[in-house]
Amino acid sequence: MVQPANSGFAHETRLRVRYAETDQMGVVYYANYLVWMEIGRVELVRALGLPYKVMEETAGLYLAVTEARCRYLAPARYDQEIVVSTEVTKSTPRRMEFTYQIRSADPERVLAEGFTQHMWLNREWRPTRLPEQYHAALSVELEK
Amino acid sequence: MVQPANSGFAHETRLRVRYAETDQMGVVYYANYLVWMEIGRVELVRALGLPYKVMEETAGLYLAVTEARCRYLAPARYDQEIVVSTEVTKSTPRRMEFTYQIRSADPERVLAEGFTQHMWLNREWRPTRLPEQYHAALSVELEK
Amino acid sequence: MVQPANSGFAHETRLRVRYAETDQMGVVYYANYLVWMEIGRVELVRALGLPYKVMEETAGLYLAVTEARCRYLAPARYDQEIVVSTEVTKSTPRRMEFTYQIRSADPERVLAEGFTQHMWLNREWRPTRLPEQYHAALSVELEK
Amino acid sequence: MVQPANSGFAHETRLRVRYAETDQMGVVYYANYLVWMEIGRVELVRALGLPYKVMEETAGLYLAVTEARCRYLAPARYDQEIVVSTEVTKSTPRRMEFTYQIRSADPERVLAEGFTQHMWLNREWRPTRLPEQYHAALSVELEK
Repeated sequence: MVQPANSGFAHETRLRVRYAETDQMGVVYYANYLVWMEIGRVELVRALGLPYKVMEETAGLYLAVTEARCRYLAPARYDQEIVVSTEVTKSTPRRMEFTYQIRSADPERVLAEGFTQHMWLNREWRPTRLPEQYHAALSVELEK
Repeated sequence: MVQPANSGFAHETRLRVRYAETDQMGVVYYANYLVWMEIGRVELVRALGLPYKVMEETAGLYLAVTEARCRYLAPARYDQEIVVSTEVTKSTPRRMEFTYQIRSADPERVLAEGFTQHMWLNREWRPTRLPEQYHAALSVELEK
Repeated sequence: MVQPANSGFAHETRLRVRYAETDQMGVVYYANYLVWMEIGRVELVRALGLPYKVMEETAGLYLAVTEARCRYLAPARYDQEIVVSTEVTKSTPRRMEFTYQIRSADPERVLAEGFTQHMWLNREWRPTRLPEQYHAALSVELEK
Repeated sequence: MVQPANSGFAHETRLRVRYAETDQMGVVYYANYLVWMEIGRVELVRALGLPYKVMEETAGLYLAVTEARCRYLAPARYDQEIVVSTEVTKSTPRRMEFTYQIRSADPERVLAEGFTQHMWLNREWRPTRLPEQYHAALSVELEK
């Protein structure tokens, strides 16, 4: 389902599974992988020099989700260290796509793969174009 | 810890335990009881003729939590029908207190008791006084 | 993305958006739609005469998610009444697929569409075949 | 409400506020502070040489919550770095109490204070006594 992007830039974020994230099946509840994807893309954007919080507060730019998909390969378990590997796989001034691989650190194992698609909105919740300097920063790895 | 209020008015709301609300201990995760308390007080306020959504949107009034407490007596389990019984136990133009009893419906059993304390804030996040008509509506059961 | 199933059987469940489900964008956080899908499929299975809780506890059958997808069309907002319309779109003794439409009740508007794919696991977390009486019950609407 | 413990041992854990943890008031939803307390106590117990995951899995010991309390002093906001400072304030072979202070890192500010009380349960969900070596490890800082 998820093709590896060719950008060569995959940002990695680590987190530890919280007790709150498990369910009575003894594994992480499936919706929480989307929370981890959010953490992955926020940290990727931060690594590109654009804290998302600042984009919202000062530029009035909101990255609304239009589609999310996750394929579950193996369960994540309480207290595991998780690596979220995130790439920008599409970036236009109006839309972005991020692709994710979620792994356990020890043993190293792919747990899930997914992507999210987004559009940029302004403060009035209308679709908007990203200013050029933001777009350039977010697309830098795709242009290589 | 939680004294029964004497107002005689306890509003009851029912909900069913979601799989997402359980944890790997096989019971409801403890923070979710505070979510149920929120549902209880919103439905109580609605029953008093004041939809909280309208208070936020049109009057710019926010009921910020200043303290929350919960005593856990027996675990809630997946798929159980839960009754949240909520009372206003204090109400001034600046502050409110709600007291809760959380029960399973079948078998009828008290699972938790708690309270939350709140202050009213305005759109600028400053403490504010509730307009008289709102305060009167929220306090009606206490005056009996 | 999501083709309407031809089974003619769409089970509807209603819920009200919780404050806890919103985020600072002022709308429902995107992962919570997967929680609502879980509620939709549990209630569909219950309507077919098979409480999922009983399947887990007495038959040791677990419906593990292998893929989830959601397309977000319009934001859900605090306190809205939500209709989750769920269909079984595939059912074999080993695998199931559910398709969902999530709407606001007033105004009536489609907010999201999605599906989830699942496999049946036994208590040892191994793929398993559903006993014939369960499979028949879950597939009844597909056979029409 | 919360007296500082005299043990002199406060374990600090850091986390960053997730978008998923905010609500439409633009701050962290109040139930999520209890999730952060869970992280604080798990990391404290790990620092004492007792990974809680191992206690559950190999010793069949479960630390059930019997009471939780939180006083909210200032709101936590999206993307802030949060410090959870946790102390063991009571420890017997049957019961434990943890006290928490939750601060923002920059600016350094106390956001919330609270405590949780717990009892040890065995695999059959019956109250149990902690084996002496566990109790000694968990109480080491209290004995000073």
